[in-house]
Amino acid sequence: MEEIKERKIVVAVDESEESMEALSWSLDNLFPIGSNNTLTLLYVKPPLPVYSSLDAAGFIVAGDPVAALEKYEHELVESVMARSRTVYQDFESDINIERRVGRGDAKEVICNAVEKLRADMLVMGTHDYGFFKRALLGSVSQYCAKRVKCPVVIVKKQPQNI
Amino acid sequence: MEEIKERKIVVAVDESEESMEALSWSLDNLFPIGSNNTLTLLYVKPPLPVYSSLDAAGFIVAGDPVAALEKYEHELVESVMARSRTVYQDFESDINIERRVGRGDAKEVICNAVEKLRADMLVMGTHDYGFFKRALLGSVSQYCAKRVKCPVVIVKKQPQNI
Repeated sequence: MEEIKERKIVVAVDESEESMEALSWSLDNLFPIGSNNTLTLLYVKPPLPVYSSLDAAGFIVAGDPVAALEKYEHELVESVMARSRTVYQDFESDINIERRVGRGDAKEVICNAVEKLRADMLVMGTHDYGFFKRALLGSVSQYCAKRVKCPVVIVKKQPQNI
Repeated sequence: MEEIKERKIVVAVDESEESMEALSWSLDNLFPIGSNNTLTLLYVKPPLPVYSSLDAAGFIVAGDPVAALEKYEHELVESVMARSRTVYQDFESDINIERRVGRGDAKEVICNAVEKLRADMLVMGTHDYGFFKRALLGSVSQYCAKRVKCPVVIVKKQPQNI
């Protein structure tokens, strides 16, 4: 019988319901019992200049606004990771879980991380946009599906099962 | 322990190396031992008008050119299915295999078939185009990834393993 290969599966997680759906799908489909696959949760913080719009409001932050922003970011990461934990903690198999946090343009950071980690698979959620948004927006998942070399799974938020 | 769900997995196959890679990936990753998943091989014949350009050459076809084209198409389907068989026949688990053949614009036929079959997953190969082609062409896999509701796996042809 063929030996079960170990695979490194990267799941991009963020604040969205869709990314939790992608995580849940990965656990259901890519971690058969007995596998020794590794799940890497990848969260990308937005590039720093995004916060420059908040500078004007800095004066209402007591103390150091940079420290306050860092704290806020840290809490955001923790919140997403905690939410991820509620998804994977009920999964019966033992899974090797890794957490990675990057910073920058999400699509670039994800593509680079997948390459650097030599991932076997990238799993991402995606929004089910209407026609106009679909036509106009190049989504992160579409971008990554084009750029990365490994197989990419694009998971949509499923309507509640009937 | 959670019961293993049965899943219907559609793999779009054609004459390309990429689609065989997608099939092989599916077997390795989506058919854990003990699963009762169904693999549907979906082949799409091009729409009939494509053949109109061959009409001029009809005179060199002995007998009925339409029958000759039908025979040619039939052989093409059989050749792709036979190639698929060489990929899945060495797989050790028992798999439920279904064959479906559609006709028309590949991307439309695939999306419709996925919906009609109530597939749980669509797996497709894709070409690793260079920058210009990537920018200009809306590939079949990108189109389907946007349109279908179920998770879509996009598999690239991997460089030979080192």
